[in-house]
Amino acid sequence: MACVVGIDVGGQSCKLGVVDARGEILAGSVIGSTGYTEASDFIDNLGAEVERLIEKSGHKGDIRGVGVGAPNANYYTGEIKDATNLPWASNRTVRFAELLSERLSGLPVTITNDANAAAVGEMTYGVAKGMKHFIMITLGTGVGSGIVVDGKVLYGSDGFAGELGHNCVVRHNGRLCGCGKTGCLEAYCSAIGLARTAREWLDMTDEHSLLRDLDDITSKDVYDAALRGDELSKKVFEFTGRLLGEKLADFVQFSAPEAIVLFGGLARAGEFLYQPVLDAMNANLIPIWKGKVKLLFSELKESDAAILGASALAW
Amino acid sequence: MACVVGIDVGGQSCKLGVVDARGEILAGSVIGSTGYTEASDFIDNLGAEVERLIEKSGHKGDIRGVGVGAPNANYYTGEIKDATNLPWASNRTVRFAELLSERLSGLPVTITNDANAAAVGEMTYGVAKGMKHFIMITLGTGVGSGIVVDGKVLYGSDGFAGELGHNCVVRHNGRLCGCGKTGCLEAYCSAIGLARTAREWLDMTDEHSLLRDLDDITSKDVYDAALRGDELSKKVFEFTGRLLGEKLADFVQFSAPEAIVLFGGLARAGEFLYQPVLDAMNANLIPIWKGKVKLLFSELKESDAAILGASALAW
Repeated sequence: MACVVGIDVGGQSCKLGVVDARGEILAGSVIGSTGYTEASDFIDNLGAEVERLIEKSGHKGDIRGVGVGAPNANYYTGEIKDATNLPWASNRTVRFAELLSERLSGLPVTITNDANAAAVGEMTYGVAKGMKHFIMITLGTGVGSGIVVDGKVLYGSDGFAGELGHNCVVRHNGRLCGCGKTGCLEAYCSAIGLARTAREWLDMTDEHSLLRDLDDITSKDVYDAALRGDELSKKVFEFTGRLLGEKLADFVQFSAPEAIVLFGGLARAGEFLYQPVLDAMNANLIPIWKGKVKLLFSELKESDAAILGASALAW
Repeated sequence: MACVVGIDVGGQSCKLGVVDARGEILAGSVIGSTGYTEASDFIDNLGAEVERLIEKSGHKGDIRGVGVGAPNANYYTGEIKDATNLPWASNRTVRFAELLSERLSGLPVTITNDANAAAVGEMTYGVAKGMKHFIMITLGTGVGSGIVVDGKVLYGSDGFAGELGHNCVVRHNGRLCGCGKTGCLEAYCSAIGLARTAREWLDMTDEHSLLRDLDDITSKDVYDAALRGDELSKKVFEFTGRLLGEKLADFVQFSAPEAIVLFGGLARAGEFLYQPVLDAMNANLIPIWKGKVKLLFSELKESDAAILGASALAW
């Protein structure tokens, strides 16, 4: 039975799976992705782990290829470029696909950025199954995007298309974003952005909030407080949802997708985000799209989705 | 020699041409597009004019098909839907391609919106020749867009993709746009939007300006005054260019085009728009694109471009 390997390279850990044609993960493992300063060391260890995993899965002769999702990965060139969260790929260009393929005795390796991999996973196994046009927005520590047009990931002229997290939501006096610009979607609608909004609002007002008892505040804290009825926390979600929804309308007017799929940590705050996002999106769409574009939450298990998406690349 | 007919349906007039495979317009004519309340009457007259023009061109047996660019036209369905500027297509859906094809004894008719037709013209005969990824922005009475991805016009799930003129540039207290929303790109960066900026600035300040002598102000007046060194007029172009450039950065981060092509009336204000647009675009791009995306002005004669673009659809 033909199988492929899916690899999700994250800022903290790297998840691997041997996946069959139906999307079943037959064997899986995790290794650390930090603690390496040289890409070659990481790729050596990753290669060894891939070999161990293939052995363990009992499908040694059946592996057709390897698909990798990684930050700042380029599908066209096979490179990871200036990935700030990966010390071994920061301020440099790593020929990742080529080096990993060499390490795996020539097994074909395909690479794409993590949000694109998630979009492929969603299209192959998730809520976007059968859709030809949709936009995946990943709401994690950052905001990523994978855009699907005519059933294919949109890569653009250089392989980097779909950096929607760095489109502007606050034009004047916006927050500084990790990219060096100000007012980016990512600076407000990521898990980190949402927590920052909560902290700013606590500093700016005297409003009662369960969050005041906490030393540091994470997006999970804001969610937990909202669940317990905390008004300030609910308003933080409303504000975050409105900014996201306003921007989604711009995206819809670009590529006319059938659906927007939200994925990642913040997307789990379903009830608190859904309505504000949907309302703001529809309020900012011209009549031909108002009320017509689906807003969906990914239903794939987050850890699986990344591996499945990456593996789907390899077929 | 095989030929096609290109038709550009505008708010005032409808331009036609018989075009050969090299993009030579062998015969052309113009009819009015207003004064009709029923689509069938317009299509009857248009059909008769197409027949006359084909006769005149001497290529009666050679015509392979007809391509039409029109406001709110849908490539997938062949319909014109709710085109506010065309009384015979306002608040209704006109099966334009089907009806015109019937009128022309079954000659195949393909239709797309006017900005998409301009993009096809630019890709086939203009500055975007050979480009696989670019975005055409038409700066006329409105702001239209045609997005090319992998060498094809992006139509999206419903045929309406690329309504970038209605993406938001002023989020709060923005101008009312013809679409019913506020703050749209079109409300600021169209010829009408630019003239309105000039009028607002004249009302708000006492600043000296050549424009103060005029009864009504058009974008052409602002351009003429800028040419004569009028500071306020130059600042109006800078402001308009900045808003456009900021938004272009968002578009680049969506589809990673090789170039943005500006087309239409305002694009003729080249020197006054170019630098502000380019500067604002680059200031709002993440490092991977800064300074790398071409900003081009269409070099096609405007009247020809629309016909050529529409004709290119018919091949």
